[in-house]
Amino acid sequence: MRTIIPLLTWFFIFSVSLSLSEEGMYPLSEIDKLDLRKEGMQLSAKDIFNEGEVSLIDAIVNLSGCTGSFVSDKGLILTNHHCAYRAIQEASSSRNDYLQDGFRSESLAEEIPAAGYTVRITESYRDVSDDVLGAVHDTMTAAQRRSAIEKKMKSIEVQAEEDYPGKRASVAEMFTGKSYVLFLYTYLKDVRLVYAPPQSIGNFGGDIDNWEWPRHNADFSLMRAYVGPDGRPAPFDSANVPYQPETFLQINPDGVQKNEFAFMLGYPGRTYRHRSSYFLGYLQDKYMPFVKDWYQWQINLMQNVDSNKDMALKLDSRIKSLANTEKNYRGKLKGMRELNLVQKRRQQEKKLQNFVEQNDQLNHQYGDVLSSIEQIYEDRRASLEHDLILDYLRRSVYALYFANHIHKSAIERQKDDLDREWAYMDRNFDRTKIYIKSRLGRYNEKVDQAVLLKLLQKAANLPDDQRITVLDSLFALDSGMQTARKKVEEAYEYDRFFQEDYLMNHLALPPDTLAELKNPFVNWMLALNAEYEKLKGKRDHWSGQMTTLSAQLVNMKKAFLKKDFVPDANGTLRLTYGKIRGYSPSDAVYYEPITTLKGVMEKNTGQKPFNAPDRLKTLYDQKRFGKYKSDDPEGLPVCILYSMDTTGGNSGSPVLNAKGQLIGLNFDRAFEATINDFAWDESYSRSIGVD
Amino acid sequence: MRTIIPLLTWFFIFSVSLSLSEEGMYPLSEIDKLDLRKEGMQLSAKDIFNEGEVSLIDAIVNLSGCTGSFVSDKGLILTNHHCAYRAIQEASSSRNDYLQDGFRSESLAEEIPAAGYTVRITESYRDVSDDVLGAVHDTMTAAQRRSAIEKKMKSIEVQAEEDYPGKRASVAEMFTGKSYVLFLYTYLKDVRLVYAPPQSIGNFGGDIDNWEWPRHNADFSLMRAYVGPDGRPAPFDSANVPYQPETFLQINPDGVQKNEFAFMLGYPGRTYRHRSSYFLGYLQDKYMPFVKDWYQWQINLMQNVDSNKDMALKLDSRIKSLANTEKNYRGKLKGMRELNLVQKRRQQEKKLQNFVEQNDQLNHQYGDVLSSIEQIYEDRRASLEHDLILDYLRRSVYALYFANHIHKSAIERQKDDLDREWAYMDRNFDRTKIYIKSRLGRYNEKVDQAVLLKLLQKAANLPDDQRITVLDSLFALDSGMQTARKKVEEAYEYDRFFQEDYLMNHLALPPDTLAELKNPFVNWMLALNAEYEKLKGKRDHWSGQMTTLSAQLVNMKKAFLKKDFVPDANGTLRLTYGKIRGYSPSDAVYYEPITTLKGVMEKNTGQKPFNAPDRLKTLYDQKRFGKYKSDDPEGLPVCILYSMDTTGGNSGSPVLNAKGQLIGLNFDRAFEATINDFAWDESYSRSIGVD
Repeated sequence: MRTIIPLLTWFFIFSVSLSLSEEGMYPLSEIDKLDLRKEGMQLSAKDIFNEGEVSLIDAIVNLSGCTGSFVSDKGLILTNHHCAYRAIQEASSSRNDYLQDGFRSESLAEEIPAAGYTVRITESYRDVSDDVLGAVHDTMTAAQRRSAIEKKMKSIEVQAEEDYPGKRASVAEMFTGKSYVLFLYTYLKDVRLVYAPPQSIGNFGGDIDNWEWPRHNADFSLMRAYVGPDGRPAPFDSANVPYQPETFLQINPDGVQKNEFAFMLGYPGRTYRHRSSYFLGYLQDKYMPFVKDWYQWQINLMQNVDSNKDMALKLDSRIKSLANTEKNYRGKLKGMRELNLVQKRRQQEKKLQNFVEQNDQLNHQYGDVLSSIEQIYEDRRASLEHDLILDYLRRSVYALYFANHIHKSAIERQKDDLDREWAYMDRNFDRTKIYIKSRLGRYNEKVDQAVLLKLLQKAANLPDDQRITVLDSLFALDSGMQTARKKVEEAYEYDRFFQEDYLMNHLALPPDTLAELKNPFVNWMLALNAEYEKLKGKRDHWSGQMTTLSAQLVNMKKAFLKKDFVPDANGTLRLTYGKIRGYSPSDAVYYEPITTLKGVMEKNTGQKPFNAPDRLKTLYDQKRFGKYKSDDPEGLPVCILYSMDTTGGNSGSPVLNAKGQLIGLNFDRAFEATINDFAWDESYSRSIGVD
Repeated sequence: MRTIIPLLTWFFIFSVSLSLSEEGMYPLSEIDKLDLRKEGMQLSAKDIFNEGEVSLIDAIVNLSGCTGSFVSDKGLILTNHHCAYRAIQEASSSRNDYLQDGFRSESLAEEIPAAGYTVRITESYRDVSDDVLGAVHDTMTAAQRRSAIEKKMKSIEVQAEEDYPGKRASVAEMFTGKSYVLFLYTYLKDVRLVYAPPQSIGNFGGDIDNWEWPRHNADFSLMRAYVGPDGRPAPFDSANVPYQPETFLQINPDGVQKNEFAFMLGYPGRTYRHRSSYFLGYLQDKYMPFVKDWYQWQINLMQNVDSNKDMALKLDSRIKSLANTEKNYRGKLKGMRELNLVQKRRQQEKKLQNFVEQNDQLNHQYGDVLSSIEQIYEDRRASLEHDLILDYLRRSVYALYFANHIHKSAIERQKDDLDREWAYMDRNFDRTKIYIKSRLGRYNEKVDQAVLLKLLQKAANLPDDQRITVLDSLFALDSGMQTARKKVEEAYEYDRFFQEDYLMNHLALPPDTLAELKNPFVNWMLALNAEYEKLKGKRDHWSGQMTTLSAQLVNMKKAFLKKDFVPDANGTLRLTYGKIRGYSPSDAVYYEPITTLKGVMEKNTGQKPFNAPDRLKTLYDQKRFGKYKSDDPEGLPVCILYSMDTTGGNSGSPVLNAKGQLIGLNFDRAFEATINDFAWDESYSRSIGVD
């Protein structure tokens, strides 16, 4: 389960709540309300989180959207191979292919800086709902309300970082339009790669096994956090020293047992369990099929483009990321249809609506909430293709991604810091530059041209009432693709554009100088500006409405069910617990919860992605396993399955036993559990870890 | 598991024995030696087989290579849908598509004659080893010995049919070169189709689910055997009446239970468990890969050829048959490699050889047996492509199949009956004509031309020492495919050839008139005659040697292991027993032994081959199941899995409980159990039946 947070974040930030089943991603504030002893836990709530004192959470880090945990007093972080993937790929070349061969540093000096990787450790949290919602006034339009809330969140963050120098602040929206929490983090920016197994171990089974159980993949790696010689957070510097965490995890010396209690701390990215049936129907019928097909098309393209080995490595990482989402959506669509999720939630909403209509006051306050939500998703359905083509032009086409940053940075960097889009705020702009450089490293001209032409072809096929008129006139799309082909080809001849120096030197220019650059891609973005502004206005209006409607829907539900809920995952620290447990994915099939080395040998074909190293095979045949000596090497555990509630962002989370000792490393969910993001169920929601 | 007997029969009739594990296909003569009561059986050996009295085997029939069982006193036979497949397909047209829609006769008069189908009921058996082996003399060459044995077998059959008018006689080779048994059968030639479910039930899951568990396929149909008004066997006649069997099976009124004892009676086709490692290595490395690829190529061809609906129906049945073997071989190859079957058997043979060499007398008698067998398979490997191209020319190319029959019947029908090849003996010739007509019904010109050209292309690619010189000169293959393409195209213009009248009228002509026909296909067969004679001579030599070597190998093994063995399956009546039992196909996966209607609905996509009928879905949703009323319709059993020892030919065998009541209908094996034909193992060898 590679992180899919960035993909959906912008898109679904604000929406509605209505839960089908009990979810289990508990925020820190809820931990002491749980009766975990009854489940088998041997630690107290204070052992896990104890503000101002050392507790288990001091060992848990948010590692650039994944989770990691300290396993030594020298800042060593255990996380997934796929979480370190970008770092390994960027450190690799055709001469030193660390993805294929693995990487092991013999000393601190050999550890490789992982550009762009950061570490956050949760320090404390504080409810700031009153403060945030105080920024809203009745006279505001929906879009203005949303904008006021976001600006207030940003200003609280900036203030907190001034009050606590060196810390990172982040306001999280727990229930949209209702509750907001400020989190303070220790924030480390010098992270290095220490160890990665060869891909034939760390990614054994590849995209075929991804999202599947039974699994036989040792998806782990080691990184290390560094600080300045003074012990304070600092950017990469060769003089930096390993960070000394407050505490670190102990490894369980005994084996894992079936049905054993286990829990997990981590940073799950995003779930949508409190959303309406209209949102789910929109995802199922329109959004996910479009994205799935679009990603599949790109995967085919990249798999068939000619390239040298260096480029193949880079395209591999793009394919891996697209394939991960494509298969996730495939699993979700299958699950939603099989479970009739939309219809079931629709029926629950009918009951809720009946309840509201039987009480005059509630009916006055909330009677129109569901129908208003329905209307918003009807509007979103109607313009989906139009809107997504515009989105993917500046996301899937790297040239336009770069041009958009040049254009946007020029405009946004002129504004007051709090009025800027997130990526261009002072506290984030360096990071944005790192992302641009990283993208440039994976750029491929043939792929980029083909992707752009395909999107223009999609635009050419739009119905009359959804045309993107600027594209029509720029590329004469009404009369076929000839002009588009010619103009695109010419544009890519402007190749000085695809240089790091050029990109860095052209960020945040004075806006009125952009046209003088005569950069064809920048010119297209200038021409498209009005379209993007219109799209932004439309979305601000929707999300402004949804901010109010979401809060109202939670109120309705509370009144109906007479209880409180756990908020959806939002990238903040959560605890989940369950058991080491198998499940039945289909009629007459049962999956055991522990896989063994025997299974690696069964799957091993010698061909990628099922190419176990010869050394492993020899050791297996000779029944030699170093300190893991076993009479039954076939039975050496490889991966474990458990009934915990996880999502993207939980990748790399430690799996802990009742004593809080490390027994596994979370890295994926079973195919049936891709649906977790919408509904969790004990009978089939299972997550996967390395033993 | 559709029957694959004809495919391999000619090829492997004679070979060597050495078993890895205990097999469980017991001949009638062995049943009273088994302690079945201990296993849970409630019947006695005499209840099952009691010569001259009525017993269970009187209800068991060999239905044209499948098994069936009488389930009424009016000759109604329960068998598999895939066993009736050819009859259903031949009765279908684009207007009455019984394959798709199913067939149900409302009265005897509506039952449809199934041309070519026959029923055999085992009456008695008698050991004739001395008689058969008495025909062999020391002065004979290997080929002469083999020929003498075969001629003696035929003469015993002819004599028995004279002694018992109306019965069918067949001498079965139990252990090659060692033991022979004469079986007498009641033989019925008027068989009709009574009931077939629609393909969406009888073949639910199609080729995707074939050879797989968990299964959700109701692979059953009903046929009926008829006799003359006088109660005696007769060819089809509208005046015929239903056959009255001696007994028929009772259906078990209760459900099937996990781990329940069960047994089966049937006509398993052929197993190879007593064969040498050299035979297995030859299959694994050469024969099965060649055939698998060749069939896959033909499947692709037929799937992509343009045709109208009538023709598509016919090609479907050809594809189904090829795909069945292709997947069976794929499973076998996987299993052989995973189990290291060849290497393991080689090691056993080494021990056997050591044992023999330590005793002067044994060494003198048997010291060279294994090395002689090795040499034969080395020779077979060396000329495999050459030999198989010749075989498939007159098997896969229908035009040449017809031409070969015209040519062969002219030659063979001149000979004394006992000297003829089997297909042209008086007692078999009518049947041969029926097969020819049936083939003609599935003929397609485009496919035929492409198949012929592909084989000529393969011939063109043969190495110098393996050239088929007649083809080289007929088609100028040395200088490319131009001549071949032109000649093939011209030949197929001779279209009067592809008429039933033409084919029937041109069988058994005087040999010297064949050339005057100016039929291009017949001319090619005349030209190729010398090649085929050479091939036959080579094979007669091999099988003559193997007849002796096989018997010697069994003697060696008996001396070494000091025990007797059960002979390999050979199409004669056998009993096997086991339990209703699941298994683990791979690490962390367990399959339960009973599937349910819930699984049908899980697999149902509405698209072929997973298109359950709407009516079934409605009944399921409404929880209505007629007399099978159940509180839990999800749990209604569909298919069952059991640890019995089956192979092709057991299709349609009744699965019986401890009381001998019908609890299921055998139709397939699990993918892992395709290897059954070479080695059976309790841990993974499982067969599949309809509940």
